[in-house]
Amino acid sequence: MSSESGNENCLGWAARDASGFLSPYKFTRRVVGNDDVSLKITHCGVCFADVAWTRNKLGDSKYPLVPGHEIVGIVTEVGRNVEGFKVGDHVGVGTYVNSCRECEYCKDWMEVQCEKGSTFTFNGVDVDGTITKGGYSSFIVVHQRYCFRIPDLYPLAKAAPLLCAGITVYTPMKRHKMNQPGKSLGVIGLGGLGHLAVKLGKAFGLKVTVFSTSMSKKEEALNLLGADNFVVSSDEEQMKELQNSLHFIIDTAAGDHPFDPYMALLKKAGVFVLVGFPHEVKFSPANLNRDMRTISGSITGGTKDTQELLDFCAANKIYPEIDVIPIQYANEALERLIKRDVRYRFVIDIENSLK
Amino acid sequence: MSSESGNENCLGWAARDASGFLSPYKFTRRVVGNDDVSLKITHCGVCFADVAWTRNKLGDSKYPLVPGHEIVGIVTEVGRNVEGFKVGDHVGVGTYVNSCRECEYCKDWMEVQCEKGSTFTFNGVDVDGTITKGGYSSFIVVHQRYCFRIPDLYPLAKAAPLLCAGITVYTPMKRHKMNQPGKSLGVIGLGGLGHLAVKLGKAFGLKVTVFSTSMSKKEEALNLLGADNFVVSSDEEQMKELQNSLHFIIDTAAGDHPFDPYMALLKKAGVFVLVGFPHEVKFSPANLNRDMRTISGSITGGTKDTQELLDFCAANKIYPEIDVIPIQYANEALERLIKRDVRYRFVIDIENSLK
Repeated sequence: MSSESGNENCLGWAARDASGFLSPYKFTRRVVGNDDVSLKITHCGVCFADVAWTRNKLGDSKYPLVPGHEIVGIVTEVGRNVEGFKVGDHVGVGTYVNSCRECEYCKDWMEVQCEKGSTFTFNGVDVDGTITKGGYSSFIVVHQRYCFRIPDLYPLAKAAPLLCAGITVYTPMKRHKMNQPGKSLGVIGLGGLGHLAVKLGKAFGLKVTVFSTSMSKKEEALNLLGADNFVVSSDEEQMKELQNSLHFIIDTAAGDHPFDPYMALLKKAGVFVLVGFPHEVKFSPANLNRDMRTISGSITGGTKDTQELLDFCAANKIYPEIDVIPIQYANEALERLIKRDVRYRFVIDIENSLK
Repeated sequence: MSSESGNENCLGWAARDASGFLSPYKFTRRVVGNDDVSLKITHCGVCFADVAWTRNKLGDSKYPLVPGHEIVGIVTEVGRNVEGFKVGDHVGVGTYVNSCRECEYCKDWMEVQCEKGSTFTFNGVDVDGTITKGGYSSFIVVHQRYCFRIPDLYPLAKAAPLLCAGITVYTPMKRHKMNQPGKSLGVIGLGGLGHLAVKLGKAFGLKVTVFSTSMSKKEEALNLLGADNFVVSSDEEQMKELQNSLHFIIDTAAGDHPFDPYMALLKKAGVFVLVGFPHEVKFSPANLNRDMRTISGSITGGTKDTQELLDFCAANKIYPEIDVIPIQYANEALERLIKRDVRYRFVIDIENSLK
């Protein structure tokens, strides 16, 4: 169960090779530095990134690999310079745990875009050369800048998906001013990201249309998530009716799909935001130029926006739909994520199952 | 020389079929209505649109077709409701001569995006069902809303290219805030549009890099147009040096080219504006998402921006580089435009050659 000898102080679940199979693993977390916060992890969301890196899909996985970057927990210790957090606070950690804090992007609170590269929460190379290990583990030590306050009364388990899925859709929605009541939003794909785009869109006062490849999620989209409209993207008639009608589209689809049919749904000067990673993006220039439309990409977001999102969700009672599982179910959960068999985010109950 | 009988009051040059060959043609302009301005045309710029429609490249050409939508001239008559113009004024007409004036886009001075469709200056269907005829002609009658003041002392011939080429690059540069001194702009292609993007970029205080397929325009780009840097796009080393360095790129290239090599040159949150019409736009999503970049399309611009551009060019002494030709050279000019053998815009001296 242990790959190191000596002071292993943290229990996690790690993949050992590209099979991605997770099993218990003990390793060492650093001692709490002056600017650090240590938290006992209560929950960790299961993100598609956990699939990608446990299985070495990007070719850069460093094993043993402890995944997880939707981390929530309770503060157990703080460094002497830490003012914003105290023992017992509910906090979260997202997709990165370090950045230079000096470049134009860090200064502008867009640390994920740090010029020197932000340090990913797992499989990242930290300043001291060690490989970061994620939230499928009992505790984590993190610089206070990359730690977020989870508002009192907000359920910890439900806060987890906000730290990657949530901020990934919130960031472009805010940047592209998709928060103007009365405007119309299309959401492509209804997984962890898409279902939060629907909830945020409704909270912003938008008219939300969900695009899905099948009818199976229609009732939940309308009744559970509150979407105004549900369209099966292969239904040419429905698609035609919506031409030139949407102010914004956010594309959370995991797989490939044609872009022109969706571009044509945008109003003039409409904005299409891509947060998924299809194999390529291809469309007719006429669909861009003639109506002065825009396509923009995005990945997660900065620390200020992340805190803002947590506060916004608490204030507006926006809660991710989650399926709480024990760590012992993690391998099956990753397999189900690959098959997109999730409603809508698995969250691991670390506190009660990782022992 | 005439295809109609009766009151033909206007002499133009028209294409009769998809050969695109232009020859003299007499036709009738409407009488000046209450809101109309009539102008004696002194000059008309030669735009690639003239090539496309004289040769029926879009399949919707209506012959006889009188091209030309970079029109300048002198007011000879105004309707009773016209307050902004008087006989003798220097004025211009651009790519459209009508719109509904009631939709959200018209109200927002984006008439080219009119919901009911703006009426193109030539080959358009006007409210009365007639086919509009462009500026390769002796005079034109136009609603005052689509007529622009050309500042005194600004050479009429040089004003012509501003009315399509100029506004086509000015509109997205303004919309995407490419007018912040000290930022960096890449310009792809150095024809009618590209050379004006360089001049406007310098006037905005930007650091301008020109991308071209050959070295042939280097000296002119740097010394005549004032660009700061010139890169041959096939030079991989030069391209690599520029990675993540540009705030903006404006793509005025007429032909096809790969997008990924240019996308990679943008800084984080950089904006790529497409004003050309390649066959397709294709790129890797990573080049969009990871650095939250944006691609946006654009075509010409609204009346308020057009007037603003004319005033800005006069105030900042920005003059298009033009090659003044007689109407008798129009056929050869179109052929040379197809071969991109222009420095940088042909302008027809209508006043002195169309007789």
